Amino acid sequence: MRVDVILSPEEVVHHDLAGRVGVVIDVFRFTTTVLAALEAGIERFYPVGEVEEAWRLKASHPKLLLAGERNALKIPGFDFGNSPLEHHGRRYQGGELVFTTTNGTRAVRAAREAALVVLACLRSAPAAAAYLADLGQDVVLIPAGLEGRFSLEDTWCAGLIASLLPGAEYGDGAKAALALWAHLPREDLAQSAHGRRLQALGFSADLSYCLECGVSTGVVLWDPETGWGALGEEG
Amino acid sequence: MRVDVILSPEEVVHHDLAGRVGVVIDVFRFTTTVLAALEAGIERFYPVGEVEEAWRLKASHPKLLLAGERNALKIPGFDFGNSPLEHHGRRYQGGELVFTTTNGTRAVRAAREAALVVLACLRSAPAAAAYLADLGQDVVLIPAGLEGRFSLEDTWCAGLIASLLPGAEYGDGAKAALALWAHLPREDLAQSAHGRRLQALGFSADLSYCLECGVSTGVVLWDPETGWGALGEEG
Repeated sequence: MRVDVILSPEEVVHHDLAGRVGVVIDVFRFTTTVLAALEAGIERFYPVGEVEEAWRLKASHPKLLLAGERNALKIPGFDFGNSPLEHHGRRYQGGELVFTTTNGTRAVRAAREAALVVLACLRSAPAAAAYLADLGQDVVLIPAGLEGRFSLEDTWCAGLIASLLPGAEYGDGAKAALALWAHLPREDLAQSAHGRRLQALGFSADLSYCLECGVSTGVVLWDPETGWGALGEEG
Repeated sequence: MRVDVILSPEEVVHHDLAGRVGVVIDVFRFTTTVLAALEAGIERFYPVGEVEEAWRLKASHPKLLLAGERNALKIPGFDFGNSPLEHHGRRYQGGELVFTTTNGTRAVRAAREAALVVLACLRSAPAAAAYLADLGQDVVLIPAGLEGRFSLEDTWCAGLIASLLPGAEYGDGAKAALALWAHLPREDLAQSAHGRRLQALGFSADLSYCLECGVSTGVVLWDPETGWGALGEEG
């Protein structure tokens, strides 16, 4: 089992994902929020890159719910923003989310060449690692980053997941992510560039929620063929 | 003094280098080889991205010497390849090199928006750090990478240089590079993707030379305005 980490979202084009499992990580906040929404009862989600695409889908399927952010803020007219606390503790009777965010949904789309895509976050990192270990296929961890740049918290989470796949053959990116995870205390992630930006916008409660580690058993899967994602059967 | 590291060469476009000192690092082997050539008496060098450009310059300035590689091998008809051992121990009476390599010369060109560009390698890392500390300006370290992908050895070297600039304010990329440097033994760099590729091609002696740390006092500078580089006065 080979495990690699693509440290920068711009690099995905230089890596061959075919036949491997892609794991997209957007701790602040997309993959955390999707997990919260699914655990609250949303049935499935459809990530899109652009706001216009979300509106187009809504026009032809009016029951769809729209979620997402631009500049971290809820998009006007959408049902939800990109905060996990909008969903945590609620209880939906199904529902389908169309989701568009600055970094996360684009990273999911960029991983479409993978055989299967897992969406992971700190809350689900051990559950995602157990799922990957069971699969036994080669894994490419893809930190979603921040507007095309490296993300400290996403890469730290990738290092954590890599550390939970012992015996794997680690690529250079995985070695760097493992070093970051081993070296930097989790609390320091709140002071990342993205963390500081969200705090300045008043999302400190979101940050605390996103930084909780291993509290969920949910594994979020996305199917590149249909474009839809949902909780895996284990979730 | 702010210190950042751009972990992936594709990311340079997302960072503002204006008014900052760019430090390009290509341990295997461009920045190591340029240092060796200048220490052996070459007066200055001119990095270009493409082989055709090197030939064009040679046509109008026949005295220019051509150096560089494609797929790690010397380009047919060129005076030099990209091996530091071609120069180490020799004694030139001046000379001007036009240099084109797969990763390093492109990274130098990509750093052209910086106020000044330093070329660093493991052999000169402490000298480069001392030079940067004296300057006192904000620093962006740019590991050249490997065909658009993250490079373990270049990022490790960036972490080493960052560690020698204590008291600096470290960006997220610098924190990751520092963790890698602190966590991974230098000997392990020979087993990076690039290191293994060069060993397979018979360049093990080059690798040993490139992995020697802090044995040179030479600081290589490149002027984005003229396109020429040379040893700094300290060198």
